[in-house]
Amino acid sequence: MPKFVYDFTEGNKDLKDLLGGKGANLAEMTNIGLPVPPGFTITTDACRHYLAEGAVPDGLDDEVSRHLKALEETMGRKLGDPADPLLVSVRSGAKFSMPGMMDTVLNVGLSDDCVDGLAAQLGNERFAWDAYRRLIQMFGKTVLGIDGEHFEHALDAAKQAKGAASDTQLDAEDLKKLTATFKDLVHKYAGREFPQDPREQMDLAVLAVFDSWNSDRAVLYRRQERIPADLGTAVSVVAMVFGNLGDDSGTGVAFTRDPGTGAQGVYGDYLQNAQGEDVVAGIRNTVPLQELEAIDKTSYDQLMDIMRTLENHYRDLCDIEFTIERGKLWMLQTRVGKRTAGAAFRIATQLVKQGMIDLDEALTRVSGAELSRLMFPRFDTSGEGIKRITKAISASPGAAVGKAVFDSATAVAWAARGEQVILVRRETNPEDLNGMIAAEGVLTSRGGKTSHAAVVARGMGKTCVCGAEELEVDAKAKTFAAPHGVTVREGDVISIDGTSGAVYLGEVPVVASNVVQYFEGELAPDCDDLVAAVHTLMIHADARRRLGVHANADNGPDCARARRFGATGVGLVRTEHMFLGERRQLVENLILAETDEARQAALDTLEPLQRGDFAEILEAMDGLPVTVRLIDPPLHEFLPDLTDLSVKVALAGDKATEQDRKLLEAVHRLHEQNPMLGLRGVRLVLVIPGLLDMQVSAIARAAAQLVKAGKTPKPEIMIPLTATVQEMEISRERAERVLRAVAEETGVLVDIPIGTMIEVPRAALTAGEIARSAEFFSFGTNDLTQMTWAFSRDDVEGAFFAPYIDMGVFGVSPFETIDIGGVGRLVKIAAAEGRATRPGLKLGVCGEHGGDPASVWFFHDAGLDYVSCSPFRVPIARLEAGRAGVSRGGSDTR
Amino acid sequence: MPKFVYDFTEGNKDLKDLLGGKGANLAEMTNIGLPVPPGFTITTDACRHYLAEGAVPDGLDDEVSRHLKALEETMGRKLGDPADPLLVSVRSGAKFSMPGMMDTVLNVGLSDDCVDGLAAQLGNERFAWDAYRRLIQMFGKTVLGIDGEHFEHALDAAKQAKGAASDTQLDAEDLKKLTATFKDLVHKYAGREFPQDPREQMDLAVLAVFDSWNSDRAVLYRRQERIPADLGTAVSVVAMVFGNLGDDSGTGVAFTRDPGTGAQGVYGDYLQNAQGEDVVAGIRNTVPLQELEAIDKTSYDQLMDIMRTLENHYRDLCDIEFTIERGKLWMLQTRVGKRTAGAAFRIATQLVKQGMIDLDEALTRVSGAELSRLMFPRFDTSGEGIKRITKAISASPGAAVGKAVFDSATAVAWAARGEQVILVRRETNPEDLNGMIAAEGVLTSRGGKTSHAAVVARGMGKTCVCGAEELEVDAKAKTFAAPHGVTVREGDVISIDGTSGAVYLGEVPVVASNVVQYFEGELAPDCDDLVAAVHTLMIHADARRRLGVHANADNGPDCARARRFGATGVGLVRTEHMFLGERRQLVENLILAETDEARQAALDTLEPLQRGDFAEILEAMDGLPVTVRLIDPPLHEFLPDLTDLSVKVALAGDKATEQDRKLLEAVHRLHEQNPMLGLRGVRLVLVIPGLLDMQVSAIARAAAQLVKAGKTPKPEIMIPLTATVQEMEISRERAERVLRAVAEETGVLVDIPIGTMIEVPRAALTAGEIARSAEFFSFGTNDLTQMTWAFSRDDVEGAFFAPYIDMGVFGVSPFETIDIGGVGRLVKIAAAEGRATRPGLKLGVCGEHGGDPASVWFFHDAGLDYVSCSPFRVPIARLEAGRAGVSRGGSDTR
Repeated sequence: MPKFVYDFTEGNKDLKDLLGGKGANLAEMTNIGLPVPPGFTITTDACRHYLAEGAVPDGLDDEVSRHLKALEETMGRKLGDPADPLLVSVRSGAKFSMPGMMDTVLNVGLSDDCVDGLAAQLGNERFAWDAYRRLIQMFGKTVLGIDGEHFEHALDAAKQAKGAASDTQLDAEDLKKLTATFKDLVHKYAGREFPQDPREQMDLAVLAVFDSWNSDRAVLYRRQERIPADLGTAVSVVAMVFGNLGDDSGTGVAFTRDPGTGAQGVYGDYLQNAQGEDVVAGIRNTVPLQELEAIDKTSYDQLMDIMRTLENHYRDLCDIEFTIERGKLWMLQTRVGKRTAGAAFRIATQLVKQGMIDLDEALTRVSGAELSRLMFPRFDTSGEGIKRITKAISASPGAAVGKAVFDSATAVAWAARGEQVILVRRETNPEDLNGMIAAEGVLTSRGGKTSHAAVVARGMGKTCVCGAEELEVDAKAKTFAAPHGVTVREGDVISIDGTSGAVYLGEVPVVASNVVQYFEGELAPDCDDLVAAVHTLMIHADARRRLGVHANADNGPDCARARRFGATGVGLVRTEHMFLGERRQLVENLILAETDEARQAALDTLEPLQRGDFAEILEAMDGLPVTVRLIDPPLHEFLPDLTDLSVKVALAGDKATEQDRKLLEAVHRLHEQNPMLGLRGVRLVLVIPGLLDMQVSAIARAAAQLVKAGKTPKPEIMIPLTATVQEMEISRERAERVLRAVAEETGVLVDIPIGTMIEVPRAALTAGEIARSAEFFSFGTNDLTQMTWAFSRDDVEGAFFAPYIDMGVFGVSPFETIDIGGVGRLVKIAAAEGRATRPGLKLGVCGEHGGDPASVWFFHDAGLDYVSCSPFRVPIARLEAGRAGVSRGGSDTR
Repeated sequence: MPKFVYDFTEGNKDLKDLLGGKGANLAEMTNIGLPVPPGFTITTDACRHYLAEGAVPDGLDDEVSRHLKALEETMGRKLGDPADPLLVSVRSGAKFSMPGMMDTVLNVGLSDDCVDGLAAQLGNERFAWDAYRRLIQMFGKTVLGIDGEHFEHALDAAKQAKGAASDTQLDAEDLKKLTATFKDLVHKYAGREFPQDPREQMDLAVLAVFDSWNSDRAVLYRRQERIPADLGTAVSVVAMVFGNLGDDSGTGVAFTRDPGTGAQGVYGDYLQNAQGEDVVAGIRNTVPLQELEAIDKTSYDQLMDIMRTLENHYRDLCDIEFTIERGKLWMLQTRVGKRTAGAAFRIATQLVKQGMIDLDEALTRVSGAELSRLMFPRFDTSGEGIKRITKAISASPGAAVGKAVFDSATAVAWAARGEQVILVRRETNPEDLNGMIAAEGVLTSRGGKTSHAAVVARGMGKTCVCGAEELEVDAKAKTFAAPHGVTVREGDVISIDGTSGAVYLGEVPVVASNVVQYFEGELAPDCDDLVAAVHTLMIHADARRRLGVHANADNGPDCARARRFGATGVGLVRTEHMFLGERRQLVENLILAETDEARQAALDTLEPLQRGDFAEILEAMDGLPVTVRLIDPPLHEFLPDLTDLSVKVALAGDKATEQDRKLLEAVHRLHEQNPMLGLRGVRLVLVIPGLLDMQVSAIARAAAQLVKAGKTPKPEIMIPLTATVQEMEISRERAERVLRAVAEETGVLVDIPIGTMIEVPRAALTAGEIARSAEFFSFGTNDLTQMTWAFSRDDVEGAFFAPYIDMGVFGVSPFETIDIGGVGRLVKIAAAEGRATRPGLKLGVCGEHGGDPASVWFFHDAGLDYVSCSPFRVPIARLEAGRAGVSRGGSDTR
């Protein structure tokens, strides 16, 4: 017979699966001797059984009765005892905190019969009736599903009748009447009486918590957060304690150290004569926790002791909730506390210094997301005259300064003339896309973290503050009104902080992050305690990671920075970037060439330029591998836009130039309905073989030149968009022919491995074949995501990612974090089957995911050799790779 | 110790893997007592060993010696015997016929020492020296790799010196001199002497055959035909027999029955005093085989006997090659013979009637490709004045008539005014795409079956004849010249037969296929012997197939035809087709709606129209399942083209209408870089929920209306482009809400299953999850192919499929036949994992592949329930499904 109920004395913090987070930590505190109100927890097993079978498991009822009896004995009171009733709270608690679920029903156990007993027990009639009407209200709303408005209206009516401004002005008699009204409301809207049997109250509340697991909000929340649907929730039944029984009572919250800086000390708030709900409602102001010492020194000292105990026990910063009932301290909750990014690093290293944890453990306490927040430039708000006008949702980090503009067209026009702008909208929609691209940052007055603005800005890496509801945006008048009579007009400068959500009037100075300056070598590791903490943990991460970290970089300076940031190779050189700017004309000549000779002449002009590009990169990365991808995009990307050019030629009429007409003809010829799925990558390379010859020759000659200068260049040639082993074989044959020719001509033989991107689903599905001809794979997870999901990033982020995240189709954009079930499955198939064919096959990833924390763990698990990402994300990848090394050890496939 | 050499008396026809096709059939004929020249075959095992290790296996040499000795004993002659030499031919023969490989070296065994012996043996000195110089020439070219031109030049020089017009005018002395010259050429170009040791000649020839397996041409051929690279080739060594020893000798080819009609009789050609090579070279004219009876009745009668034996033995039409050497008949080759499509059906049923095979076996003797050829309309060339001007490569079947045009622009312009045109080009390139679309058919004077014109036309299902080298196309003058002084000018009518490759002047009458008329019910099954044969085999195919065959059809008449053609359901109704034509304006209103009310009004107008569409289809398919796909394409497909409209508005300037400006704004807003990867399918359905509501409501009401009229409608709702189970869950919830509402309103409850297309790789990869919410899967293999390969059909067939097929990247377009390794793997994953979640999951396919013969077999193997294809391909799918049922029995997954 399974056990469905655990007394707090039976559980512990490691039983979160069974007891939920709240129940497990209450048990833990009970067992280390802290003053927790007695209680018990009904397990998630019981919930799962109930949800699957539609009835609680056999025996649960008896088990609850036994535990209830024990609780009654401990408390010396009985549930429903008219003379001296026991009251309990019924609290939901799943493994993962789920704001979408019902939380708590307080004061369970009160009834007509025992409300007077409670009044006598506490010596307070008004309190007893207030508790009773609150029970009916909470129970009616959350257990019986009655619209809360009905109760609110009745309460308002009672206050109005009395001429009272607040609840507290209602006396016992008023509350007694209100209770009667509330019971009528239950009868009217629930079609049943408010249950007078306290055990029935408790049982119904437990079932309501179970049912809340499948409420619409909970289902949506789980869908969004990718929490499995079959975990179920636990329910804790806890003896009530009251912080609102007079000035010798109160309630508070605290942290065991400063969650902002990690400094040790006393951080918390206290509210005299109040329950926890009152703190949340913010009706009265709390006082700093230090003042409790003067109010109730015994409780204060006991609390300080408890906080030390908890920190030693959890070996981490904890946050707690407590209540003092008539001088007696009760612990209501604890958990490992949230903290800022800087504090995370500082606390982790402090705990190491204090000998409480080792460096491996310290690495698990910080994250790449936190490191990334420390690397963003930030506002220096220490100066005079900095005016913060509101604070809203921090939707996409960064510090952006610019002139406020209120529509996309203006954003684009002003940005085109070199101005920095902030796009301000009530909310954004797909039409704002160009404006968002042009702006430094985006500010909206509506919408949350999954609004269009937030999702799209994060996708672009653009600073965004959203849901600034204090601002009244008037797009027509091109102004917004802020609190305190501030009005911002088009062209006024504002500053927005995407990390904190703050919005400032005027230009706030931006300072570079110390952490970045440290990575750049401009600040010493001991310049401040944050940098010192980062330094310590980066060194340890490097020692513990199995994954190499390379960078995506297309020129010498980027390569040099990547090296400073710790990259040990370049995983992706995009050669098409080298065809832009002044060289665009050369590529145009190549495309417009009408004879083989003209085409070859264009290629011959490009070759020495490319050779120079490669020499610069190979020199910057001397001794380290550099993976050069042959040209990837369709050729028409180097030509003018079809519509623009068509309009130009049409308007010019007879006066259109011969060049423009020829150009338009070429644009028409090369135009593609879906360029992403067109003549690009290896297809281009095979159909216009001169391109491959030119690029391979430039790589080989650049390498030969460096070898002659005493360097150790290590280029690798990467074929893009391969879908079949045949493409790979043909490209390899051609490339090897060129390499042999260059080796003969220069007299220098450089070993240049030839491999391929795996970025087309078919390549992953036939990787076992492709590996016959490829010496390495690099997963191009951007394209692989596009093809596997059948959406192009250009088109969809603006069009439906926001509603999709809102509806929970994604938890997070699959362009941000790798989609393990779909794209990740292809990566694993390709890794395993590629290595089955060629055991030494080198595997890397060069999509944006290479620098994303969650994705780095996946790539570690998939057994890849390295990740490659933009230089700025190299430290993040190093840290996460180290954390994955510590937590996961080896990997699935090797 | 493995056996590497098989005497002809040891092998049989089932050992093709080991002995190659030629060797296996020679052994078979030997063993049924037919007169085959003695010989032996060296196995493909030996070849594989040699290719892998660089040396022949130990013991092969001894084994060959033993078999050679046995051969010498049988023949009573010895290899290299100066007095009476044995000569042999060395012939390559792989499992699959490979024209890319070296074929044969004849006369092996001749040397300086024994040429006189041969002369004495045959009593013909000239013959002996001619045989010797031929050996050196063939051996030099194919074994020693000397350019054949060198020998041709020397031969020409010898003829010139003699003043001879043909080889036959050179006498023994001339040939002796020429032999010396050939030996010098070998010395000069191969750097070695021509080997005088006959055994060395034979061994080198064997190794050359082995090496030819990896020649460039063979590798390319295998890549194109998807023949595994590791099969290797066998080598047969056969005693030489000569058909050119005088008028009592000769050579011939024959069929055991008419390969054009299947009629029994004597079909073949004979050439007196000649070798097989002379027949191929076409130097002299052959005579009908019947005439052999007069020339050599004994041999003729023996041959007739042999042909009967072979047909009884192979139980099929055979083709043979034979040689008569001085009155003695020798069989040199046999194999099951090729035949026309009509003959295939007739022969198969004839053999059943003759009791030689059963109906199951008969089904394996015909194919969907053959049936498809019988279903094309054909030219009736029986009338007067039909003038065929050339015959070239039949690249894409059909019969097309139209005015000749010589450029794409003219094709488009003439077609736009309602004229039928044939596009005539030297060769086509991507710029001709629009012209090809506009034309009835395409005719080129250059390029083969894998040329751009051929590949693209097949992809479009457009009639095409290519490589008509007798035609001189002058695109500038807009004419082409044909043999016999015929000139065709722009506007002249021509007729091209894509099935036979014939090109006719003027309009040839087109007649519908009898087979189609039979399927339509317009001709009785006994109207002619071909239709009777088709009828017999279709009935048997239906009895033996496990796969259902549904049709893709969007309206009542198409559904009715599909039913006549044997479809037992509609697997795909594309609802977007219903939004074209006059209703386009309604969709435009929907898209341009600025308020929810206006949008709903547009939807409300569309609903009754859609309901009518569905009612018509459901009525036509009464009692059979009809799978309706909700709207799939992006909305901007219903708006004008961006570039066209931009030019129109720009040219109108201030005079542009408000409507056009608004339209342009909408087109801009909805414009997508890659519409294939944009806001379409289920995304559209979720972002604009009213669309789903409207369509589901129209389906449900149409069904209710038919139920009330006593019918049995069986609609199913299919969600397109699903990539996640979440999309499916949300769509299902919405659809079910509408279904409940309609059921309440109409009082009719129709069970309408809700399922999804699997057309996005991620859907296949997460099919186990999606099946939780989908009652059926239909594989959309068109889109699945596009996404898995990352190419859009619109863009790539013209751009690089021709070179890709030419280079062997594909054997056939993956849009034509399913790519088993990539797309097929996804289908198998989804089928297996979908059924693991939901055992009764119904699986079908509704891409073009549903009607492709090779693909039907794959879908059978993958365990699908049905295929769905265009009505015209329904009979083909039925036939192939029956054949797969007979040959494969069950399937992989169920």
